[in-house]
Amino acid sequence: MQFDFATIAGLIIGLTVVTLAIMSGSDMRIFFNLPGFFIVFGGTFAATLIKFPLTGIFISIPVGVRAAFTVQKERPRDYIRQAIQLVKRARKSGIQTIEKNNLKNPFFKKGVQLCADGRELDYIRKILTQEMAMAIQREELGGKIFRAIGDTAPAFGMFGTLVGLVQMLANMSDPSSIGPAMAVAMLTTLYGVLMANLIALPIADKLESKSSEDKALRSLIIECVFQIQQMQNPTAMLEILEPHLPEKQRQGAANAGAYTAGRDSKGSR
Amino acid sequence: MQFDFATIAGLIIGLTVVTLAIMSGSDMRIFFNLPGFFIVFGGTFAATLIKFPLTGIFISIPVGVRAAFTVQKERPRDYIRQAIQLVKRARKSGIQTIEKNNLKNPFFKKGVQLCADGRELDYIRKILTQEMAMAIQREELGGKIFRAIGDTAPAFGMFGTLVGLVQMLANMSDPSSIGPAMAVAMLTTLYGVLMANLIALPIADKLESKSSEDKALRSLIIECVFQIQQMQNPTAMLEILEPHLPEKQRQGAANAGAYTAGRDSKGSR
Amino acid sequence: MQFDFATIAGLIIGLTVVTLAIMSGSDMRIFFNLPGFFIVFGGTFAATLIKFPLTGIFISIPVGVRAAFTVQKERPRDYIRQAIQLVKRARKSGIQTIEKNNLKNPFFKKGVQLCADGRELDYIRKILTQEMAMAIQREELGGKIFRAIGDTAPAFGMFGTLVGLVQMLANMSDPSSIGPAMAVAMLTTLYGVLMANLIALPIADKLESKSSEDKALRSLIIECVFQIQQMQNPTAMLEILEPHLPEKQRQGAANAGAYTAGRDSKGSR
Amino acid sequence: MQFDFATIAGLIIGLTVVTLAIMSGSDMRIFFNLPGFFIVFGGTFAATLIKFPLTGIFISIPVGVRAAFTVQKERPRDYIRQAIQLVKRARKSGIQTIEKNNLKNPFFKKGVQLCADGRELDYIRKILTQEMAMAIQREELGGKIFRAIGDTAPAFGMFGTLVGLVQMLANMSDPSSIGPAMAVAMLTTLYGVLMANLIALPIADKLESKSSEDKALRSLIIECVFQIQQMQNPTAMLEILEPHLPEKQRQGAANAGAYTAGRDSKGSR
Amino acid sequence: MQFDFATIAGLIIGLTVVTLAIMSGSDMRIFFNLPGFFIVFGGTFAATLIKFPLTGIFISIPVGVRAAFTVQKERPRDYIRQAIQLVKRARKSGIQTIEKNNLKNPFFKKGVQLCADGRELDYIRKILTQEMAMAIQREELGGKIFRAIGDTAPAFGMFGTLVGLVQMLANMSDPSSIGPAMAVAMLTTLYGVLMANLIALPIADKLESKSSEDKALRSLIIECVFQIQQMQNPTAMLEILEPHLPEKQRQGAANAGAYTAGRDSKGSR
Repeated sequence: MQFDFATIAGLIIGLTVVTLAIMSGSDMRIFFNLPGFFIVFGGTFAATLIKFPLTGIFISIPVGVRAAFTVQKERPRDYIRQAIQLVKRARKSGIQTIEKNNLKNPFFKKGVQLCADGRELDYIRKILTQEMAMAIQREELGGKIFRAIGDTAPAFGMFGTLVGLVQMLANMSDPSSIGPAMAVAMLTTLYGVLMANLIALPIADKLESKSSEDKALRSLIIECVFQIQQMQNPTAMLEILEPHLPEKQRQGAANAGAYTAGRDSKGSR
Repeated sequence: MQFDFATIAGLIIGLTVVTLAIMSGSDMRIFFNLPGFFIVFGGTFAATLIKFPLTGIFISIPVGVRAAFTVQKERPRDYIRQAIQLVKRARKSGIQTIEKNNLKNPFFKKGVQLCADGRELDYIRKILTQEMAMAIQREELGGKIFRAIGDTAPAFGMFGTLVGLVQMLANMSDPSSIGPAMAVAMLTTLYGVLMANLIALPIADKLESKSSEDKALRSLIIECVFQIQQMQNPTAMLEILEPHLPEKQRQGAANAGAYTAGRDSKGSR
Repeated sequence: MQFDFATIAGLIIGLTVVTLAIMSGSDMRIFFNLPGFFIVFGGTFAATLIKFPLTGIFISIPVGVRAAFTVQKERPRDYIRQAIQLVKRARKSGIQTIEKNNLKNPFFKKGVQLCADGRELDYIRKILTQEMAMAIQREELGGKIFRAIGDTAPAFGMFGTLVGLVQMLANMSDPSSIGPAMAVAMLTTLYGVLMANLIALPIADKLESKSSEDKALRSLIIECVFQIQQMQNPTAMLEILEPHLPEKQRQGAANAGAYTAGRDSKGSR
Repeated sequence: MQFDFATIAGLIIGLTVVTLAIMSGSDMRIFFNLPGFFIVFGGTFAATLIKFPLTGIFISIPVGVRAAFTVQKERPRDYIRQAIQLVKRARKSGIQTIEKNNLKNPFFKKGVQLCADGRELDYIRKILTQEMAMAIQREELGGKIFRAIGDTAPAFGMFGTLVGLVQMLANMSDPSSIGPAMAVAMLTTLYGVLMANLIALPIADKLESKSSEDKALRSLIIECVFQIQQMQNPTAMLEILEPHLPEKQRQGAANAGAYTAGRDSKGSR
Repeated sequence: MQFDFATIAGLIIGLTVVTLAIMSGSDMRIFFNLPGFFIVFGGTFAATLIKFPLTGIFISIPVGVRAAFTVQKERPRDYIRQAIQLVKRARKSGIQTIEKNNLKNPFFKKGVQLCADGRELDYIRKILTQEMAMAIQREELGGKIFRAIGDTAPAFGMFGTLVGLVQMLANMSDPSSIGPAMAVAMLTTLYGVLMANLIALPIADKLESKSSEDKALRSLIIECVFQIQQMQNPTAMLEILEPHLPEKQRQGAANAGAYTAGRDSKGSR
């Protein structure tokens, strides 16, 4: 697991741009307004609490933040190599021998276990597909929560501005106070726009793209498990699995031997 | 049935934030405007009446409110345990003996009854699927009504503000009255924004997420009933049903015995 | 056929709210502006004319208005009862005897006729499905037209306001005329908002919900016809068809006899 | 081919409404602003050029305009009659004799040719479906282009207004010039709203509805060709094809003879 | 590969229109505001960085820009001709002889290679479909990134305007500075509107239309490969493949001979 440089760089650049924009023309302090911040943040938090199940929120927000800031170092290529090694072993020593393996991905491990147990293809498909559906649904909840935050924040920003305008208009005794009062009223709209467009919506998009990556990865693993269960010929297997990889990670069927030769003793990396 | 803490906490926090926002800068009373409230509430109510069938509204709004504020304490795990117990009994004493059971969920009970009656799988699937479709549709209507309210309230808020502005502009004899008149005109927009974003849309989202939870639960029950009808082996059954559970509620197939051992006499839970 | 109380009550409440809102602060007359009304109404009518086929408009608008203001008193329950009676007769005297029946719904009658003619299931499915698709499409056109009106009216409201503002700004010789001129300019926006949110969009929603009700009803009838064609056992038939009914309209299979006993002579109600 | 009265009437009514709206309160000339028109038109044209392939634009815009202003006088009923005549001939003199026919619709003609060539059903289905997909795609491009114009025009209207406001605000030496300058700035927004809502979006809707009409027509023709290939019995054929017609264009199976009797010599209409 | 004239012409026309619009009423310099530009550009860039995987951005943006500005000169017609030549050779000298060919499209070449290797249809379908899915997904990412830019730019434009207004309102000591300050504040909104509507959204649309063109092309190639694998009769092949072409590129089955006669020695162009 590594930091997701894009997320971090994006946030730093974004906050720098915002800070410079503000400081270019005025004192920074006129942009801080604690009550305004509480209206936007508190209102959005309240609406989000109502929208989602409680456990969903307290699990999905930290999980989502962690997912947005880290990169899973799982390489599809490695799964294909491991699958080919397992098939080779299964063809040599029998399918039940692959029960012992050092796979790290629990989803892959479970699939291989089902093969070693001698399960049928349909049975394996049913279990892995359902397992995948549950995992994807869990991951998507994080994206949905951040999207809901991004949809709600501007509305509470507008609410705060309306409150400020009504207060100002109702007490317009001193004309010279109109300007600063309007400035304060506008701050909540500004907070809402920023919270939505710099933080919540981008993180929602990132989580969605990560959960679709994970879906592709699990689909590849399911395909690998199917090939193992059928004790497919390793060359054909590489040919079938390689189109799942991005172009430049491929090696071509010619190298299928290289994948597996002399590594069985060391096991999968 | 328990209170849904998230909904209640969200509403309390939301209303507190709104109250504090208003009181921080002015007297609370300038934000109360009964005619303005009637425009937004009455207009939204009228439009909702036209949009939905009458019975739908008067049944779905209270049902929806109740669903939004309570949590169903149905645990998928319990259904799996009950299904395994029933299968064990069916394999020992015959499928017709499971007619007597103490299932509380009427949907599950109906499915088990169909098994005890010796119905075929296709027949059971057809009946349970249709039953589920009807229940989901009923639940979704509540979500749709609250979403319609959330879509309409801001429009009537804007209508109220337009009425106020036209009245003010048409009689602009006294410049000093402009400020307060505009303040009052803006209140309806504020009411509309709040009604939509703090109440109607969050409840709509909650209802939608609850109806999709119910859908998952009923899918699990249908799967349970199918396994019972086929008098599946309990260990295989656990393996097939467990992927429907969130990860941390699982026990693994090794414990399948523990589920059923020595509990048959006590019945389910 | 009865009046749809919800639609009528909604319109009356909505218009009352609007009238009170207007009269609470000013003379009603300042809200009447015939040219403004013509801009919004005429522009929306023109755009709608371009959007839809001519026959579609002149048929679908009156049909839609009628559908929105009336309730079809077709009870799914009655169709099930009639189907069971027909099946009983068919099992006693042969399928061709059901040709004579007093079904009122032409779609049901057509399906029963096909059964009496001894058609195969696939053939009946093809014909009824296509017939249903045509009917639903016709009904949906009404909903689409009202939705198009609801989408277009606010745009022409805004157009009218822009025209008014340009005229006012171009001739700003007398400052005291600015207020009333702006008031008039804003009226078209107000008309557009009201036409869309109180009338066109709610009626569009109502028509959509009615056409989806009709779809469910026709699906039930198709299911009934299938059961008749197969001369299904009446008890099983009730069991298969009842899940199509809302919960409280059901009786349970135990009453299947009650449905049919001693009514055959009177025919379906 | 005839003029589409609805499109033309809609445009005339729309332009009349707009003209009257403008002339009711002021000189018409203050609404003409050539630079403003160029900003909205030129910007929208530029964006549309980037969005679509060049050939698509120069073919689809004229084709789209023509389709929007004309009505295809193809009556589904005629196709059914022609199909029945062809089937009657095929059953009498052999399927290869229908090669000679005076069908005018090239899609129907091609399907009949495939039948006369003795092709199999699957082969015919494949070719006609692909042909239909290509034709529909071509027609839909026109709708997409007009929709893109309707989406872009208001944005360039807003751009023009922003340019005008910035120019006015930057040189606010003479207060009396503010009004007229703002009036001019607002004209581009007005042009954008009108171009989108009176012209581009309605035409896009019309083209979409025409391409879905054409889809239904081609589906009917494909169904006709299938019946011909199978040398279906004419009475059954009418029964199968009639549900594709709107209710009032049907005659009922009883008249199937009337369709075909004594017309074979004259050929189709 | 050629320049895409439409994209380039669109951009030139768009920039010309914008420049003329600006220069028609004022000095060009008042529209340049470097800090404003940095707010919109920097904020949008930051949000885009967070939204997408880093490699995706740095690969997809240049690839997308290149795709938007160039036209692939791949003619579907040529693929059909090449496929027919290969089939002719395969029928004469055996399927394995087509391994040697001078196809330039790597996707087509891979499919032909699989045929030459004697693979089965299902196997080929699986590999080519997966390969196509990966390629399309890669191409669609470019469109998504530009669409995200187009969605975000106006929000940061609005943010910049809010910052400018707050600064102006908070320091409203000198009334004469209000105009120019507001002019500067509005510039960011103007930049956002332009960046979205003249550049990002049109390019996103162009990329989407190109990736759907590529999808159609690859579908045609897959169909060609299937025909080759089955060593289809050349005349039937042309009949099956031609409906994939736009109408005016077709020749009719009569010319199938012309395609292949006397060209085998020269190989596919």
